[in-house]
Amino acid sequence: MTTVDPAVLDQLIGALPDGAVLTDPDMTAGYRQDWAADPNAGTPIAVVRATCTEDVQAVMRWAAEHRIAVVPRGAGSGLSGGSSAVDGGIVLSTERMREITVDPVTRVAVTQPGLLNAEVKQAAAEHGLWYPPDPSSYEICSIGGNAATNAGGLCCVKYGVTTDYVLGMQVVLADGTAVRLGGPLLKDVAGLSLTKLFVGSEGTLGIITELTLRLIPAQPPASTVVASFPSVESAADAVLAITRDMRPAMLEFMDHASINAVEDAVRMGLDRNARALLLAQSDAPGVAGAQEIATIVAACEKHGATEVFATDDAAEGEAFTAARRSVFPAVQAMGSLLLEDVGVPMQQLPTLITGVEAIAEDCDVLICTVAHAGDGNTHPLIVFDPTDPDMTDRARVAFSRVMDLAVALGGTISGEHGVGRLKRDWLPGQLGADVMELNRRVKNALDPLGILNPGAVLP
Amino acid sequence: MTTVDPAVLDQLIGALPDGAVLTDPDMTAGYRQDWAADPNAGTPIAVVRATCTEDVQAVMRWAAEHRIAVVPRGAGSGLSGGSSAVDGGIVLSTERMREITVDPVTRVAVTQPGLLNAEVKQAAAEHGLWYPPDPSSYEICSIGGNAATNAGGLCCVKYGVTTDYVLGMQVVLADGTAVRLGGPLLKDVAGLSLTKLFVGSEGTLGIITELTLRLIPAQPPASTVVASFPSVESAADAVLAITRDMRPAMLEFMDHASINAVEDAVRMGLDRNARALLLAQSDAPGVAGAQEIATIVAACEKHGATEVFATDDAAEGEAFTAARRSVFPAVQAMGSLLLEDVGVPMQQLPTLITGVEAIAEDCDVLICTVAHAGDGNTHPLIVFDPTDPDMTDRARVAFSRVMDLAVALGGTISGEHGVGRLKRDWLPGQLGADVMELNRRVKNALDPLGILNPGAVLP
Repeated sequence: MTTVDPAVLDQLIGALPDGAVLTDPDMTAGYRQDWAADPNAGTPIAVVRATCTEDVQAVMRWAAEHRIAVVPRGAGSGLSGGSSAVDGGIVLSTERMREITVDPVTRVAVTQPGLLNAEVKQAAAEHGLWYPPDPSSYEICSIGGNAATNAGGLCCVKYGVTTDYVLGMQVVLADGTAVRLGGPLLKDVAGLSLTKLFVGSEGTLGIITELTLRLIPAQPPASTVVASFPSVESAADAVLAITRDMRPAMLEFMDHASINAVEDAVRMGLDRNARALLLAQSDAPGVAGAQEIATIVAACEKHGATEVFATDDAAEGEAFTAARRSVFPAVQAMGSLLLEDVGVPMQQLPTLITGVEAIAEDCDVLICTVAHAGDGNTHPLIVFDPTDPDMTDRARVAFSRVMDLAVALGGTISGEHGVGRLKRDWLPGQLGADVMELNRRVKNALDPLGILNPGAVLP
Repeated sequence: MTTVDPAVLDQLIGALPDGAVLTDPDMTAGYRQDWAADPNAGTPIAVVRATCTEDVQAVMRWAAEHRIAVVPRGAGSGLSGGSSAVDGGIVLSTERMREITVDPVTRVAVTQPGLLNAEVKQAAAEHGLWYPPDPSSYEICSIGGNAATNAGGLCCVKYGVTTDYVLGMQVVLADGTAVRLGGPLLKDVAGLSLTKLFVGSEGTLGIITELTLRLIPAQPPASTVVASFPSVESAADAVLAITRDMRPAMLEFMDHASINAVEDAVRMGLDRNARALLLAQSDAPGVAGAQEIATIVAACEKHGATEVFATDDAAEGEAFTAARRSVFPAVQAMGSLLLEDVGVPMQQLPTLITGVEAIAEDCDVLICTVAHAGDGNTHPLIVFDPTDPDMTDRARVAFSRVMDLAVALGGTISGEHGVGRLKRDWLPGQLGADVMELNRRVKNALDPLGILNPGAVLP
């Protein structure tokens, strides 16, 4: 921990409401890491719990004056270390910024960043509307963090990702200036597309203090198919057959280890002997939905599914979806995790999934793979015992090799979690020197002092 | 026209394939203006018709070395003067870059920028797929221009705008470096969202030489409602009633003057006495579609429609849609035009439309208004006689006042056409000084010499 002149810290405390600044190490310790549990996370000199845009401006003005690093933090559920504290810096938490208004006429929500994704969905639902993006962590992740990482989820295969729903924002820049970008307009091309630039910038360009989100009519009731497969290849082939013919509202994949981890935890009656399981939904209305379900069932059967179960009972479908969402906590109970988030073009999905199996065998580590299969985004979860240095090393090698494989297949090191600090070293391998330089130019133009989330995304 | 050292121009000619560089003024004259017919368009020293990314790189390397302005140009159908030539500069046309491949498995098209929007749609349709964005000019506008302006269209009210379909691109930067951004992945958050930044940048940040576009399954057959109204307010109120309850696949507005201009041109049997007409579509399948059509009909009747006609005949629906698309050429036959493209939050739509009527009366000019009413994007078309200086002045005043009104209502000076050169002077009024500065910082970071489409968007 770097120390700071107490007079400098007093300036910050004086510029903010009472209780906004935490300096007691017992209080700030919980803000050092996000869910990625970055072992290299630093120790902040203070945590600021902002309540409004003006608080964030005060922090950034002070930080710019004293050249102090600011790490923005939503709910702390990030999986790539995007909110790891840095030594001598501030953690700026938006957890207390929790106001939302929903306008059913323009069909937008205007929300502060601290609301949880589930709370935004709930506020929309009160007006018969829907905010689609649904990270598995939707009950514990913040909407501000969703925008900062351009978060995805399960329904994105049909409904798109966070950026597709962000129409505007208020953002505080590195020097403390607050600007409004976009607004409640579906079409607005006046000036550069800066709203979209800030989405997914992981707090490296500015701090989002308000979001204007597009809402759509409530999702129709969905029908669900669960299918068990004798191999990962057969399941992956079924995925391609489905997406070639239709656009499912959900198309999730779980491998053998994931199935059993979930079944240990929640007892859904999943087939413990299956090597892979697909969970698919159609939310097309009426006959169209029945046709889509028939297409899904036929694709699964054609590619060797050993068991195919279809239901139009919404509660039953939600129970399976909840089981799928519980993979991460269920696997986490088995050991420490290195979380992958690699994606590939659809036709490479079988190669990626079998390649991950080969890497697991080669490195002698357990890798449980779940995937948003319908959009090619997979989450191989590498399980290891941190007290076993050799296994820890092998897990790290596997982590690196999975990303290298995805990039070699024309894919990405991160589909929806963000690069943060844990995947930063692999970014140049994906983007190449010229695109890295382009990233740096934009970063330097907007944060010339390098005080916004330093060390995240870019070296 | 600025002259250029012939030896410098010879370097350019030597760096490109035979016939790529046009210098004959008879040949280059047609590249001075786009459809906006910018009276201040300059005279280029040459026009380059590139055939590949390498050609574009050669142009930019040469332009950077000699600090010569480059104006990118697609099909020249732009409506804001984004492709007006500048004196002493080059016009870089992508009209010869016309390759496309469609991959039905990943459901993406990889296309060069010179293809027309209609040709991209056609290539997708050959695989049973659909590229939704549909500017009224889709038969004559290029896909590269669509990406450069983040073009909209009629179906965007339900299906989104161009940026929602751009997954990746190859772009040539100001110094001639070619980079690839994104790719055929629905989810990819590795690094800053640069793909989205280039969409809508109107050629001021780089020159797009290839696009990777998301395709979706073919649109289901649509049913159509045509409704006549006794006032623009009643039609605008019906629009709000419709969008409050459902998401139409199309919701277009035509005022009295537009109806009659179209009827003069194509004889659809539209009600010439109506003060406003709505054209709405639902493409929801089966019973859901019938319910949506019933909702539209009920909303129109409730808000005083004098005539409501519904049809599920696709050819009939397409004929009405074609009539709507023909407003611009039909009105153009009446005189010179100043084309507006203002948008407002939905609940301000009645105020905007009646405000435009008041401005027309006040300035004593004819303004025909058509609108993508369902997303609040309107096109007041200001008709004037350029040989009448007083009328021309009054038209210009009306042009300015319409934009001021939209901004005052929380809207935008451009929903889908772009700022180009014709609306540049109004941009600061919408964005404010801080956001203008943010635009400039990004522009300067990517084009430090200011050679990419100088004078467009930013002063």
